[in-house]
Amino acid sequence: MTRNIQSMEAQMSGLGVSIRPHVKTCKSIEIARRMMADESPGITVSTLAEAEYFFNHGICDQLYAVGIAPGKLARVAELYQRGLELKLVLDDLDAAYRVVEAAGRLECRFRLLLEIDADGQRGGFAPDAHALIESADLLAQGGCRVMGVMTHMGASYDCRDTACLRRAAERERLAVVSAARHLVRAGHDCPIVSVGSTPTARFARRMDGVTEVRTGTHVFMDLVMAGLGVCRISDIALSVLTEVIGYRAGAGEWIVDAGWMALSRDRGTAAQAVDQGYGLVCDQDGKVIDDIIVRATSQEHGILALRSGKPIDADRFDVGERLRILPNHACATAGKHDGYWLIGDGQQPRRYWPRIHGW
Amino acid sequence: MTRNIQSMEAQMSGLGVSIRPHVKTCKSIEIARRMMADESPGITVSTLAEAEYFFNHGICDQLYAVGIAPGKLARVAELYQRGLELKLVLDDLDAAYRVVEAAGRLECRFRLLLEIDADGQRGGFAPDAHALIESADLLAQGGCRVMGVMTHMGASYDCRDTACLRRAAERERLAVVSAARHLVRAGHDCPIVSVGSTPTARFARRMDGVTEVRTGTHVFMDLVMAGLGVCRISDIALSVLTEVIGYRAGAGEWIVDAGWMALSRDRGTAAQAVDQGYGLVCDQDGKVIDDIIVRATSQEHGILALRSGKPIDADRFDVGERLRILPNHACATAGKHDGYWLIGDGQQPRRYWPRIHGW
Repeated sequence: MTRNIQSMEAQMSGLGVSIRPHVKTCKSIEIARRMMADESPGITVSTLAEAEYFFNHGICDQLYAVGIAPGKLARVAELYQRGLELKLVLDDLDAAYRVVEAAGRLECRFRLLLEIDADGQRGGFAPDAHALIESADLLAQGGCRVMGVMTHMGASYDCRDTACLRRAAERERLAVVSAARHLVRAGHDCPIVSVGSTPTARFARRMDGVTEVRTGTHVFMDLVMAGLGVCRISDIALSVLTEVIGYRAGAGEWIVDAGWMALSRDRGTAAQAVDQGYGLVCDQDGKVIDDIIVRATSQEHGILALRSGKPIDADRFDVGERLRILPNHACATAGKHDGYWLIGDGQQPRRYWPRIHGW
Repeated sequence: MTRNIQSMEAQMSGLGVSIRPHVKTCKSIEIARRMMADESPGITVSTLAEAEYFFNHGICDQLYAVGIAPGKLARVAELYQRGLELKLVLDDLDAAYRVVEAAGRLECRFRLLLEIDADGQRGGFAPDAHALIESADLLAQGGCRVMGVMTHMGASYDCRDTACLRRAAERERLAVVSAARHLVRAGHDCPIVSVGSTPTARFARRMDGVTEVRTGTHVFMDLVMAGLGVCRISDIALSVLTEVIGYRAGAGEWIVDAGWMALSRDRGTAAQAVDQGYGLVCDQDGKVIDDIIVRATSQEHGILALRSGKPIDADRFDVGERLRILPNHACATAGKHDGYWLIGDGQQPRRYWPRIHGW
C-alpha cells in the first residue's frame, strides 16, 4: 500500500500536479492520511457520511464528487456551519436553480465545481456547452461560489491497451482545460481544474492546465487495474482471507467460505483479456496459485476452479486451509467489510483499521 | 412483506411441512420473528455473526447452512456453552475428521446435518455416496450428533419456466429423501430432512419425507423471483429510495444518486427473459414507471434508461425528484444497507428496523 501511494505521488509530482485522493475506496482515516501528500489540497469523497467522518477527523477541504441531490443541501449547510469546506458538483442547469434556491433559503454560500463530460458515459456538461456558462452565471448571481471544473474519465476502464489509456488521459485533460477556458472567458474564476481516475493518472503524459488529480483505487490496486496494465498483480495490497470448506470431487473444484458477500459481485475483469472470475486465489502468504480463480459465488460460498477448466487435484488443498482472494475491484470488495487487518511480512495481523459505510 | 410471509406459510402448511426461515436475506430480528410461523422449528443463518445476533435475541434453534470451516469451531463451541443449539453442515469426509478432532479437543458435542447435492452446482454428498455414510459413522463415533440431511437447489434460479421449477423442486425433494433413507438404513437417526430455496418451495407439489423448508427471499421477493414467476412485481416489498441529480441530454438518460453501493452489483435478471438492468424504477409511491430501468451504475451514480433504448424525455423527471428502485436480488441489495425504513400506505417512514452485517 505504501509503495502504491508513493509511486502515484512521484508520478503526479513529476507532472507538476497535486493529488486530492479519493477516499471512497478506503473510507478509513488512517489510510486517507497516508494518501495525502504534503501538497494535497484535501480529499475527495463520494457520500456525505464520508464527508462528516473525515471532517470529524480534521480534514476540512473536501470535494464531494457526485452531482449534488437537492434533498441533501440542508445537511450540507449544517456541515458548512460547522466549518467544513465541502465543494459540491453539479452538471445540470435545473440543479443549479435548486442550489441557488437552497442557498437563499438556508443562507449558505455553497461552493461548486461544474462537472464536465469527457467520455459520454455518465454526467457532465459538454466543455463548450452554453448551459455550463448559464449555470455558472446563475450560481454566482445566486450567492454561490463557482470554483472551477472537474471530470471523471470512467471510459478509461474500458481500454484494452496503453495507447487507448494515453488517449483517454489526454481527452480527459483537454475536456476540463477547455471548459475552464470557456468559464474564464465568460468572466468566472476557475482556481480548480480537477481530473480523476487511476488509469488515466497512471498513463497521462502531461497535466498542463490541470490543478489536481483525484485517484483512489491506486492505494490498493486490484485485478481490473492489473488487467489495464496500471499495476502488476504483485502490487495489489488488498485480499480477502478465506478458509477451504470442501471439495467437489465430480467437478474437481474446491469450496471456500467467501462468497459474494465477502468478495462483492463485481465482475470487472469479465471483459478484459484475462477474466479473473470473482477473484484470483493466493496462498495464505499472498503468493498467487497456479491460475486458480473463484469461478462462481453464492452468498457465503466461493467455488475455486482452474482457469483452464481442468479439474483441480483432490489433494491440492486441505479442508481448513487458509487462502487469500485478490479482488477484481478494490472499492467494491473493501465495501463489503468493516475494516482492514494489517499484515506485514509475517501473516499475523498487526493492527486493525476500521472503515465507514452508509450515506 | 406480511402478505409474502403469509402466502408462503399457507403454501407450506398445505404441503404439511414447516418453515425454518433463512434470515440471511433480512438479518433483522424484527423481521425474523415475523417470518417464524407457530410451528417453525427455528431459523437458518449464513454466518456466525447472524447466529450470535439472533441467539442474543432469544432464538436458540438454528441451522448454519454453510459448510463449517474448521477454523470457526472454537467460536461455535463457545456458543454451544452459552446454550445455542446450532446445527452445522458439512459435505466432505475430511471436514468430518476435522469436526471430530475439534469435538474432542473442545469437549463439545457438535450437532450436524450432512449436505446433499441436488443439482451439481455447489457442494454436497451425492445421495447414495459412500462418503455420506462414512462421514456420519465417523461423526457419531467421534461424539457428535448426526441430525439429518439438507440440500439447497440453487439450480432453480436458472429455470426459465414453471415445468423446470416443478422438476427442480421434485429433484430437490428426492435427493434429500433418498439420502435420508440411505442414512437410516446405515443405522443413523435422521430427524431433520431439510430443503430450501424460495423458487422450489413455491412450485413444489409434494413434500413427503421432508421435515422443513428453508426459504428466505420470499419475505421481500425481488425481480429475479418475479422473472421466475415466483411472485408478481407488485409483491416486491423492498426498494431503494433515490433522488434525481441530472439529465444526460445527448443520451436521453437521467442520473440518480443510487449506484452499485446502494443497489448492489447483482445482475441476476441479465439471463432472464426480461433484463431489469440494476433495478426497475418506480415513482416515490412505488408505482412502476413505463419500462424505465437502471441501465448502468458506478459507485454512487445510477443511469436511468428506457428498456427500449429510446431517449427519455427531458421533462420526464425533475432534479430533486424522488424515485424508488426495485432490486434484482433482495439479499444483495438489503446487504448494502444498515436497516429498513418501514412505510405503509403513506410515504413517510414510520419505523426503522436495523439489520446486521459482517461475519
